Amino acid sequence: MTIPTVAHYALTRLSQLGIDRIFGVPGDYAFAIDDAAEKVPGLSWVASTNELNAAYAADGYARIRGAAMLSTTYGVGELSAINGVMGSKAHRLPVFHLVGMPSERIQRQGLVTHHNLGDTVYDRFQALSAAATCVSAVLTPDNCVEELERVIREALRQSMPAYLVISEVNGGQPVLGQPIIGVPLAAVKRQKSVPEELEAAVQTILLRLDTAKKPVAVLTHLVSRYGVRDTALALIEKANLPTALTPNDKGTMDEGMPQYVGLNAGNLSSSKAVRDLVNNADLVLDIGGIVTSELNTGFWTGPYDESKVLSIHDSWVRCGEKVFINVAIDDVLKTLHERLTLRCADHGLTLEPPALVGSGEDPMASASFYPRLQRRLRAGDTLVIETGTCMTHLNKVLLPPGVTAEGQGLWGSIGWATPACLGVAMAKTSGNTWMVSGDGSHQLTLNELAVMGRYGVRPRIFVLNNGLYGIEDVISERGHDYDDLAPVNYHLLPQAFGCRNWLSARVSTVAELDQVLDQIDAHDGAAYIEVMIPNEESQPMADAIIDRGYKLRTPEVG
Amino acid sequence: MTIPTVAHYALTRLSQLGIDRIFGVPGDYAFAIDDAAEKVPGLSWVASTNELNAAYAADGYARIRGAAMLSTTYGVGELSAINGVMGSKAHRLPVFHLVGMPSERIQRQGLVTHHNLGDTVYDRFQALSAAATCVSAVLTPDNCVEELERVIREALRQSMPAYLVISEVNGGQPVLGQPIIGVPLAAVKRQKSVPEELEAAVQTILLRLDTAKKPVAVLTHLVSRYGVRDTALALIEKANLPTALTPNDKGTMDEGMPQYVGLNAGNLSSSKAVRDLVNNADLVLDIGGIVTSELNTGFWTGPYDESKVLSIHDSWVRCGEKVFINVAIDDVLKTLHERLTLRCADHGLTLEPPALVGSGEDPMASASFYPRLQRRLRAGDTLVIETGTCMTHLNKVLLPPGVTAEGQGLWGSIGWATPACLGVAMAKTSGNTWMVSGDGSHQLTLNELAVMGRYGVRPRIFVLNNGLYGIEDVISERGHDYDDLAPVNYHLLPQAFGCRNWLSARVSTVAELDQVLDQIDAHDGAAYIEVMIPNEESQPMADAIIDRGYKLRTPEVG
Repeated sequence: MTIPTVAHYALTRLSQLGIDRIFGVPGDYAFAIDDAAEKVPGLSWVASTNELNAAYAADGYARIRGAAMLSTTYGVGELSAINGVMGSKAHRLPVFHLVGMPSERIQRQGLVTHHNLGDTVYDRFQALSAAATCVSAVLTPDNCVEELERVIREALRQSMPAYLVISEVNGGQPVLGQPIIGVPLAAVKRQKSVPEELEAAVQTILLRLDTAKKPVAVLTHLVSRYGVRDTALALIEKANLPTALTPNDKGTMDEGMPQYVGLNAGNLSSSKAVRDLVNNADLVLDIGGIVTSELNTGFWTGPYDESKVLSIHDSWVRCGEKVFINVAIDDVLKTLHERLTLRCADHGLTLEPPALVGSGEDPMASASFYPRLQRRLRAGDTLVIETGTCMTHLNKVLLPPGVTAEGQGLWGSIGWATPACLGVAMAKTSGNTWMVSGDGSHQLTLNELAVMGRYGVRPRIFVLNNGLYGIEDVISERGHDYDDLAPVNYHLLPQAFGCRNWLSARVSTVAELDQVLDQIDAHDGAAYIEVMIPNEESQPMADAIIDRGYKLRTPEVG
Repeated sequence: MTIPTVAHYALTRLSQLGIDRIFGVPGDYAFAIDDAAEKVPGLSWVASTNELNAAYAADGYARIRGAAMLSTTYGVGELSAINGVMGSKAHRLPVFHLVGMPSERIQRQGLVTHHNLGDTVYDRFQALSAAATCVSAVLTPDNCVEELERVIREALRQSMPAYLVISEVNGGQPVLGQPIIGVPLAAVKRQKSVPEELEAAVQTILLRLDTAKKPVAVLTHLVSRYGVRDTALALIEKANLPTALTPNDKGTMDEGMPQYVGLNAGNLSSSKAVRDLVNNADLVLDIGGIVTSELNTGFWTGPYDESKVLSIHDSWVRCGEKVFINVAIDDVLKTLHERLTLRCADHGLTLEPPALVGSGEDPMASASFYPRLQRRLRAGDTLVIETGTCMTHLNKVLLPPGVTAEGQGLWGSIGWATPACLGVAMAKTSGNTWMVSGDGSHQLTLNELAVMGRYGVRPRIFVLNNGLYGIEDVISERGHDYDDLAPVNYHLLPQAFGCRNWLSARVSTVAELDQVLDQIDAHDGAAYIEVMIPNEESQPMADAIIDRGYKLRTPEVG
């Protein structure tokens, strides 16, 4: 048996988790990694147009597959990716960021290299890149077997990115030690539980559930990150627990399930009924850990009464002042499911898809766009939702049964959706990938369309063109020039980017949208639609922005 | 008199240095800065398509104006810009990076916000962004007058970026204290000299110059950064010193000056004559500090004999084992110029523009492209040179008198040139801005074309399309799939990006290039030309890459 090189081994070991793509930009110092990517069976290199896009694509891929690989080069490359990797940290995605470094031969000679500041400090960027991850290592032939196991373990345990540095020379040298054959991510036990603590936590939860008169559950995306979504949904079904999502977690629950009640977010909840249900509950079973950021709580208008909340986090449970530590979410949910006896009455709420509005020559508007999009989604499809006003609209749209969604509501880095859509589409093995973005966000990363075209990815993309940063126009007040955008002809981009067999169009009326949606259904390829939607007042959000220091335009003196 | 707000004051004070644009992406937490940008007289907001592009544009602007302003928002924005700002640090450019932050009202309430990790750590990103700068501050009404003076002083003294955090609330509150009226950058004394040390340094240099038989000078871009380029050139003229540049410093010297001898970079020097001249010199007067990185020394084939080098750095001078500290480069050069008596003989080298090669239906090649471009450059023009194979070609092209150039050879972040070209063009008050980039680099940042179109900037851009990362193909060996690029139709991009009155074309033959160059001369607007140049063997560079750990593809065992 040939002994693998360090780079070859690292990529092989990571691919065994179930990762079949590595997103990145090749570059000097990282060629050992790039070369290995071509040689590891079952692994393919995806050449992103830049490193931030690669990081976003890896983020999208990890959402479907549970983990992802990203490779960039020293300094310039890794720093360009750092915002994307930090977003994966916020959204709890194990993205393995593999980065090149000048060889130890160069370092020992004390030679000055490019991609640096003209001196001989070679590890200058490591602390910066590592800050976007939860664990890191510099791999060598001697340490790589052990270090890689440690890094994988910790990245999966915390479900956060990892940073791996492989110098050009070390990457090409043979591993010293016994290579390890990994297992798919779903078979990995990511966090162990202390039995006594687990038993105490479960008994506490069961007691609260058994005595609750009006319990509701709030399900968060953490269950997807830890591969326990099915377990959580089975628990909800068994107890017939009325279950809400928060905006950040859109798509985590199948919205066709009878237990689903809608989106809870204070003033910006999907209905008054769901808001009342959560506010009037005597127990809120928080499965995964609710994020209480402003965008997830209607600008803090939907605070949770902590005395009523029971939270099951990744490795801990909180019930009032009781905190149980070292209890794994999979163990907690599985044990609860086994022992639970609660059976709630049906919640009685009726959830409807948004009504069809507009027709014919009516100019396009949000009210006519989103309901039409909703009716085209099919079981197995995934909807990628960009941050911005489209997120607030899409979050309220009831997803058809079997449709999932991905968004980035916590980190909220505009531009994320376009490359993330690429990653999602590449990770999915069936179903369509849909994406909706405003023009303000799309402009940041639209060059990734070239990558979609090159690799034959077939997303269905809608760019809502209102000529300005809509969400910022809402938050910052109307009429600032800095919210205006360049007059891009988005529908011309696929051709310019060399995308073959893309259905591309610009629509301005409801009839045009209806027609193009029919064409998409019949089209065997990608679609890219520029939807001209004039800027609209987003009154619900504007109303929700209360003055707690968020929107303060004039000095508050005296 | 109205008391300015913190944000308004900071932008006013910085603009007084001579900065009339602020590049950035607006965003929540940064609206105090964005609003102020609209109100400060003489200052205009430039809405970049993303934060990295904004940082590159600010870098380009600072090269012409001596300083620049960049604004991004908290977390997502500032992290996206960090690679660009680090590049400005490497290339010694005072870019003031102004960043928003959640208000102190939010912080004191302990509220969770988006653009963060779901907790209440608000200063998480400050250390990361600050690492790309030499000085930083969090401005408040109370400290902003003093802190701003300190930050400006240090950024200019070190000629490196600065990081300024302004929270949304603080940014909108009135300054406490007496605002300061600033002076233009050229009038600022950036570094003071200790008189005794200065005298000793100057006497040492003069003694070495007087006794040298075969002195040469090497001029670096640091003299442009400190505004002493004219003083340095006057010194060179007075002494009639044969003067070389290094690749990093292309454009620093007017190449029409009779003292110019060419580019010195070991095996990759522009001629054997210039290499011999430097190698055989008994004194190398290094004005600014030579960077000895591989890309600046023909992959370390052109080492400098330290016993013969006398280096004048920003605030110190080195002559063998003698190091003089706290001596400012402007004082050293000015005093040298006053006292110098050396007068060298003419160097006798003849420098010629590259010969015209090819004609008619000949397919385009590097040999036919660069000489034709060279003949179109006019005094007052600036050539922006992307990193990659085009850099190695352009560095060897003799610039016509009065033409300057900007490149990023040390940091070498591909994609820099396109947004930097925007910044250069906006900073220049006369002359044309030309840019040459390979497709591999251009794809990273091409969305910035939309910004050029929107603001009516009129660059003349050449994208050399060979369908792959040419420079990486050279360094990493031939034929790796990861060096291939998406088949973009670059010439269609200006129309897609809504650029009006842009001359756009694709050329494949010499005749087509000649025709389009004539059209550009006659065209009153921007030009964007896709030049189809098949991949070429870059043998000189391949030869120069010696095995000192840089290019090692197989393990070197035993």
